[in-house]
Amino acid sequence: MATKLSGFPEFLPRERIVEQQVLDHLRRTFELHGFANIETRAVEPLDVLLRKGEIDKEVYAVKRLAAADTEPAELALHYDLTVPFARYVLENAGKLDFPFRRWQIQKVWRGERPQQGRFREFTQADIDIVARDVLPSHFDVEVARVMAEALAGLPIPTPTFQISNRKILEGFYLGLGVADPTAVMQVVDKLDKVPAEKIRVLLVEQGLEERQADSVLALAEIVTTDTSFVQRVEALGVEHEMLTEGLAELAQVIEGASGVDGVVVTADLRIARGLDYYTGTVFETRLAGWEHLGSICSGGRYDELAQDRKGTYPGVGISLGVSRLLVPLELSASRSVPSVVLVAVGDEESRADSDAVARRLRARGIATEVAPKAAKFGRQIQFAEKRGIPYVWFPPSSVKDIRSGDQVDADPDVWTPPTIDLTPNILTKTESLKETNS
Amino acid sequence: MATKLSGFPEFLPRERIVEQQVLDHLRRTFELHGFANIETRAVEPLDVLLRKGEIDKEVYAVKRLAAADTEPAELALHYDLTVPFARYVLENAGKLDFPFRRWQIQKVWRGERPQQGRFREFTQADIDIVARDVLPSHFDVEVARVMAEALAGLPIPTPTFQISNRKILEGFYLGLGVADPTAVMQVVDKLDKVPAEKIRVLLVEQGLEERQADSVLALAEIVTTDTSFVQRVEALGVEHEMLTEGLAELAQVIEGASGVDGVVVTADLRIARGLDYYTGTVFETRLAGWEHLGSICSGGRYDELAQDRKGTYPGVGISLGVSRLLVPLELSASRSVPSVVLVAVGDEESRADSDAVARRLRARGIATEVAPKAAKFGRQIQFAEKRGIPYVWFPPSSVKDIRSGDQVDADPDVWTPPTIDLTPNILTKTESLKETNS
Repeated sequence: MATKLSGFPEFLPRERIVEQQVLDHLRRTFELHGFANIETRAVEPLDVLLRKGEIDKEVYAVKRLAAADTEPAELALHYDLTVPFARYVLENAGKLDFPFRRWQIQKVWRGERPQQGRFREFTQADIDIVARDVLPSHFDVEVARVMAEALAGLPIPTPTFQISNRKILEGFYLGLGVADPTAVMQVVDKLDKVPAEKIRVLLVEQGLEERQADSVLALAEIVTTDTSFVQRVEALGVEHEMLTEGLAELAQVIEGASGVDGVVVTADLRIARGLDYYTGTVFETRLAGWEHLGSICSGGRYDELAQDRKGTYPGVGISLGVSRLLVPLELSASRSVPSVVLVAVGDEESRADSDAVARRLRARGIATEVAPKAAKFGRQIQFAEKRGIPYVWFPPSSVKDIRSGDQVDADPDVWTPPTIDLTPNILTKTESLKETNS
Repeated sequence: MATKLSGFPEFLPRERIVEQQVLDHLRRTFELHGFANIETRAVEPLDVLLRKGEIDKEVYAVKRLAAADTEPAELALHYDLTVPFARYVLENAGKLDFPFRRWQIQKVWRGERPQQGRFREFTQADIDIVARDVLPSHFDVEVARVMAEALAGLPIPTPTFQISNRKILEGFYLGLGVADPTAVMQVVDKLDKVPAEKIRVLLVEQGLEERQADSVLALAEIVTTDTSFVQRVEALGVEHEMLTEGLAELAQVIEGASGVDGVVVTADLRIARGLDYYTGTVFETRLAGWEHLGSICSGGRYDELAQDRKGTYPGVGISLGVSRLLVPLELSASRSVPSVVLVAVGDEESRADSDAVARRLRARGIATEVAPKAAKFGRQIQFAEKRGIPYVWFPPSSVKDIRSGDQVDADPDVWTPPTIDLTPNILTKTESLKETNS
């Protein structure tokens, strides 16, 4: 990977093929579920980004070079796809049909210090459902399910969805008699970095009684792969209307999102999401063996995604960090070009004959290129080999599988390669080792 | 179209579907011809852009907001895909296979004054072929042919390729005994804005004899849809080795790029392309009835796309302005969502049954959404109608084509809609009028 500008990765063709296939799969899944696509401009007014953003998200300001030096920058590159989406919904509210399901895959930019899994330019894939005034909780189930299906089809380490609901935490804390549930949530949110012992001390320092602190930690320990978390919470003996509501919502999400092959779904009551705009369901996702990358896919329910004079627009969504998701992959494909066939050229005078064969193959959807030079056939086969092109066609009517050496007579209007050869294949680590050794 | 920020257009879902289908078609065509995809980062070092760029291309500088005010911007958004590609080729020369065919579709940014067909953020689709040291002229034919096939499949006004070769102009001028052919070319380049009479005066002012000026204008008048331009140039009685070479190259390109249905290919000797880095073939393309948009697709041969210690990298390429191409289109689709089917919900208790039907349809590639609310069936049908979803499924086993009203018994594991309904269809102006009236 060429990374001459730190934090701005660029892929070689074989790497890009893997990324393309991942993006194609995501799009296919989102569209199968009826999500419409939009793109928003790369820039937003600077004040919009600063108003909504957290302080630690470093923004890139954008200014016409021709503008005067003293003129302050008014635009900046977006650092996520949620803020632009909220602005888009408000601007187009009169023309959109609600509930509005959208998927959006675009680059975003953050001036953070680059490290593994953290880039300055990276690709996000977001799905959100937004409604006017009311958004029933079955939409929380839907976004979780769609993202689980999207991840299930990818050649990545097993993803574990960690799902919680802020109503459970807040309701539980209120039921316990805690005065400031938000402050407690922010302390509990540090549980993956700070040991439970320390968290307990911090909670007591915040004015919690010992037994309250113990209950808070007991709640945070609950992780189940089914709806049994409900009984475990109830066993803690705390009661509050908001808690009951949160438990019912989370149970619905866990039930609805489970059962997708290759994806683990957990109710994990440690998850709180530090961001303050979530109001119910919250999601995080980690990859087995790659937990140090952090969550690759996060989101939740925000009851006030946007607001105008006509009312509020509640939403629920998940954002997948595609660039981070690619880190554990081998990022190699069986070939560096889309071509299934290289048509050989006997001599430059007969190049038109080779072009004609290529045209007939393409007419049937078979990606084909013609040799750049009428070199010796051995050289032309090497040319194909280097790129991983599986077949070489010798005009008029002979085609060779250069992996096996099998050569057969064939008609360019009829011959079809096996489906597996039609597009480049993603290599997994073992397969690519095999290729190197053979 | 929401254009709250002038020059930064954003599409509504039905408009975006048209753009998506245009982009999908371009990609399919490029990949059928064996072009590999790459993406480059959005930013380049400012000095690289300013070194290569023309003065009139306004650049957007990019700077971390956290950086000191006095710190000068070092990065800027790219204004085309050619400069980044040249940089990418040099950075990765050791890892790329040459000749290297690549397609690239990305946003670019220019701080120009917005007007019809001119945006500050827009999408370009580029194909280029680059080699090490030598790039035979059949690659000029190839890029023209591929782009002609790419445009042929789109629902746009008839495109006319205007192809010339700078060797013809330069060789002809040298053969005429003109001292500074480049200066003459720059005057001739104004022919589409300035009348021929005035151009003649300008040429004489530059020191040309009357008969030289007449010959220069006679050459610029030659436009043919076949290779007969060769005889017409020869009839002007000027001879030069470079002219002969240019004529042979252009004849090859015109022959190879012609014959694509729906695309007019012309040899047009008025075309010179003001930019100074082209060294042979040059392309422009105009849409019938939309000539005022300017060229939607331009490019040519540059014998020194890039250079390093190991040698030079000659290239030939064409850049298509996708955003400009979309201007003449209706930008409307038969529906605002990918969904083919809306599964109705009888009551909230049976939502799981509707989900199950949807899952079975999706498993066979049929995009499906489930009704948001267990409203009266009439309301649910209206919901589908508003989005243009053609079918409503009533669980367990009845499906209605809501356009015709036909309802049939069906099995979600077997029922398949006609192929034409599988994806949204682009509406042409007449069709969309029909829809409104019916």
